[in-house]
Amino acid sequence: MPLPSRLYLIVDPLDTGRDPLTLAQAMLAGGARLLQLRLKHETETRRFLAHAAAIREVTAAAGATFVINDRADIAAAVRADGVHLGQDDLPIEAARRLLGPQALIGLSTHDEHQLDVAAHTSATYLSLGPIFSTTSKANPDPVVGIDRLATARQMVGRPLVAIGGITAATAASTLATGADAIAVISEIVRAPDVERATAELLESIA
Amino acid sequence: MPLPSRLYLIVDPLDTGRDPLTLAQAMLAGGARLLQLRLKHETETRRFLAHAAAIREVTAAAGATFVINDRADIAAAVRADGVHLGQDDLPIEAARRLLGPQALIGLSTHDEHQLDVAAHTSATYLSLGPIFSTTSKANPDPVVGIDRLATARQMVGRPLVAIGGITAATAASTLATGADAIAVISEIVRAPDVERATAELLESIA
Repeated sequence: MPLPSRLYLIVDPLDTGRDPLTLAQAMLAGGARLLQLRLKHETETRRFLAHAAAIREVTAAAGATFVINDRADIAAAVRADGVHLGQDDLPIEAARRLLGPQALIGLSTHDEHQLDVAAHTSATYLSLGPIFSTTSKANPDPVVGIDRLATARQMVGRPLVAIGGITAATAASTLATGADAIAVISEIVRAPDVERATAELLESIA
Repeated sequence: MPLPSRLYLIVDPLDTGRDPLTLAQAMLAGGARLLQLRLKHETETRRFLAHAAAIREVTAAAGATFVINDRADIAAAVRADGVHLGQDDLPIEAARRLLGPQALIGLSTHDEHQLDVAAHTSATYLSLGPIFSTTSKANPDPVVGIDRLATARQMVGRPLVAIGGITAATAASTLATGADAIAVISEIVRAPDVERATAELLESIA
């Protein structure tokens, strides 16, 4: 199953204090059609659920695909299109049992070994990163680099999402190196005008 | 579906610093056959999952029933028997869709209105509390009292679990008032000898 868009925006307020729904609406207004909600520090299911339900509504209205980070239970509850899992999250097969064969299930990888292992799962797509250095994570994995993205492209038959430090300046070359989509957090979430930054990023890869 | 035991022990270390698996093993050694893992402050799915998997193993070996608090995704991943949900957690029907018709799904209620609403869900059992004052929660709901447990018993056709401040001194009378099971945290988790406290509590309701 191909990804529905070459731009994968992650709704993670980071330290901006911005509201997830407001971020999502600006991304959609800017043309994004593939969003992930990522609330790493939200311990209250009720609050996570409320954000997810609100964003499910606006993504559905926009015909956009909506994925939840980590919480397969919340993805199921709001009928999101899927879940994105890290190496330490729920096993892919557990999420697949929960969400069914049609669900978009993504798995983060950070090196060739993890890509190898991921090949034996039912993940719909794999992400690889950080391609460049990133400010979105407090303790990021080592930088993968664009050369190893090219190698990864040779190894991976399913959709491959590049993530980590990608900007409008590197988006097109990252896609040209073989990524099916680029995932972006900081560049958009920290932008003064999220809608405009999204539209410009889309233009840079059009 | 009747509950498998009249004693429902909740594996929540509270502020004791005790290890969840060690607590669960002592409870099982003391004779408990219905356990719930409750880790309200665990934000890392990986760690929650590891605790849950370890306790699933020992409960299965003991023939005990094992329920996870809040996280239906983790319940599914470790093949727990069910999930216990609070008023602010996942909707019951979302958890039912995830876990299937055989899953034990519990719902916390704190007053008659919530019991009324709960009657229209597919929850397997309802809990009501706090029956007495409790030290297990930082901001507990108002005390329900034993008289209103008797009233609740008249309202509720499905299994009813009394929770909140129940000790060996009040366990038998709480059951006699109409609860199908008593759920206990502090009295056991804070006991100097968890296995012995469990055995004594079981004896008090034998």
